[in-house]
Amino acid sequence: MNETSNQQVVLAVRPQGDLKPSDLRLEACAMPLPGERELLLETIYLSIDPYMRWWMRAEKSYNDPIEIGQVIVGATVSRVRQSRHPDWQVGDWVLAYSGWRRFAVSDASGLRRLDPNLAPPATALGVLGMPGFTAYAGLRNIGQPRPGETVVVAAASGAVGSMVGQIARLRGARAVGITTGAHKLSYVKQELHFDAVADYNAPDFVEQLKKSCPDGIDVYFENVGGKIWDAVLPLLNTHARVPVCGIIAHYQRPSAEHASIDRLPNTMAQIMGKSLTLRGFIQTEYADTQMDDFLNEAGQWLANGQLAYREHLTHGLQSAPQALVDLLQGRNFGKTLVKVAEP
Amino acid sequence: MNETSNQQVVLAVRPQGDLKPSDLRLEACAMPLPGERELLLETIYLSIDPYMRWWMRAEKSYNDPIEIGQVIVGATVSRVRQSRHPDWQVGDWVLAYSGWRRFAVSDASGLRRLDPNLAPPATALGVLGMPGFTAYAGLRNIGQPRPGETVVVAAASGAVGSMVGQIARLRGARAVGITTGAHKLSYVKQELHFDAVADYNAPDFVEQLKKSCPDGIDVYFENVGGKIWDAVLPLLNTHARVPVCGIIAHYQRPSAEHASIDRLPNTMAQIMGKSLTLRGFIQTEYADTQMDDFLNEAGQWLANGQLAYREHLTHGLQSAPQALVDLLQGRNFGKTLVKVAEP
Repeated sequence: MNETSNQQVVLAVRPQGDLKPSDLRLEACAMPLPGERELLLETIYLSIDPYMRWWMRAEKSYNDPIEIGQVIVGATVSRVRQSRHPDWQVGDWVLAYSGWRRFAVSDASGLRRLDPNLAPPATALGVLGMPGFTAYAGLRNIGQPRPGETVVVAAASGAVGSMVGQIARLRGARAVGITTGAHKLSYVKQELHFDAVADYNAPDFVEQLKKSCPDGIDVYFENVGGKIWDAVLPLLNTHARVPVCGIIAHYQRPSAEHASIDRLPNTMAQIMGKSLTLRGFIQTEYADTQMDDFLNEAGQWLANGQLAYREHLTHGLQSAPQALVDLLQGRNFGKTLVKVAEP
Repeated sequence: MNETSNQQVVLAVRPQGDLKPSDLRLEACAMPLPGERELLLETIYLSIDPYMRWWMRAEKSYNDPIEIGQVIVGATVSRVRQSRHPDWQVGDWVLAYSGWRRFAVSDASGLRRLDPNLAPPATALGVLGMPGFTAYAGLRNIGQPRPGETVVVAAASGAVGSMVGQIARLRGARAVGITTGAHKLSYVKQELHFDAVADYNAPDFVEQLKKSCPDGIDVYFENVGGKIWDAVLPLLNTHARVPVCGIIAHYQRPSAEHASIDRLPNTMAQIMGKSLTLRGFIQTEYADTQMDDFLNEAGQWLANGQLAYREHLTHGLQSAPQALVDLLQGRNFGKTLVKVAEP
């Protein structure tokens, strides 16, 4: 390990439309030195999540945009390699927010200690991490499915979608998953035990969804947007709830000019006519008050074998740009993780 | 009074786009006869409301559509002309739902007795009626303005809008009204005491609205839709609430084909990025549990001189079709009422 053995990925140019790997740049950088009460962390797993594309837009949203030359943000499962902090030992596993880099210094604030004997550490980025908590918080605070109600989610084999359906079922609701491809459809039905699935690339997708929801839709967990919304909207029941946690379809093309149809008037008319609730959220709003509940409850479900999950792993920090591109195109299968280093 | 002295207005043809008076037909009809425990009511005031156009659409919504040949629905302030019911006397004032007709029979269910000594009976159709309660319920349940927050409403001189702003101010919030025309702008500012107004037909409307909301918008009471939404959306603060009770702009043209821009993706992106809540409602959802609170509170405000209101009166049932057309075009000034008969 020497001064130049650190690596990071920065924003090279602001992406226009679909993200390309060349919009990002892998570069060597100096090894950071921990000061008094600081730690040196080595990234073992880097979480790849759709919101990263959102943060690359120029517009300010709930966050400041990532600037050109800045390291891409991201949650990591890391190990302590040097410690100048009395509470931490070399070798400790932590959930951190180091971003897309191999080594990072931390003042230990905001770290969560992970016990590798309780659950595999990488689950802190997926089923027991931000994606799982996003599903949990969106259902608990906004979706509020009652037993027997129908909950629909797209990207159903993904990190958030798979948890939405499984939690909905654990609450006694019916879960309907939207995805595409024989493997993913089968996985959602057979291994995640959703009640029904619909293939959004099938010519009869709208019919499939309708048949999967004979009593309409009470909760639509919106994490995709685009044409799926058009199929869901007519099926929503009076007083349906729509947690909006992400709209991957719009991250890359936030405005659709030269469209042939303005879809907003019909959406507003349905909101009014069916007394719908659409509510955007980010999981951080609920983390302070509900994260402990989530970790207890989901940890128990996982220990009991009531939660299935799947990881989509690539290797080495240099694989991260393509991994994000693939995720945004729906070419991942499960929670996307980059294994940056051996534990 | 003889068998043919009754009159009603029915749906003649299903309107396409903007409502025309000829889409409705005034016709003579038989005088109804009250049976045992029934009343004959004479309509004194007929309420003209935007939702009537909504109910003329072919699509089912929260209601069944009005069929061709069917009497147009509507709330009325009526007087009892014959009573075969022990609880009611000839001459009693009632809030009824007789629809667009001069005489109607009622079994007395759903009637609200009005005391003309407490408030002018016509207020039961406006400031103390459905429009007032719509404003009250939308703010109480969805908008939830806190003191110092900014509440924006369009059609600010209208029956609902005027109450939204006045209630918001009574709750300690700032009220900003959107309307057009020197008389309406002045009325909203001077007589309704809104904190600021913006003229949606002014070339600098977007700038006017922005200047009127230096701290952004916390509650937008959506009762209009269309281009006003485009001006409001960028000003909404994180966690802003949008009660959606009506979208007059969309009643007549629910879908906008051949548009140049699809506005839905940006709206969804803002819902997500700013954790907005959009929630459709109809006041009937809250009437059972909150109408008494409203009548007590708003009745007190009115008695104390804390609520201003204005009525836009036309005369005779034959004037009702044009009155609705004018309302939908924004040519009314205040709560639109048809005075069908002398008390």
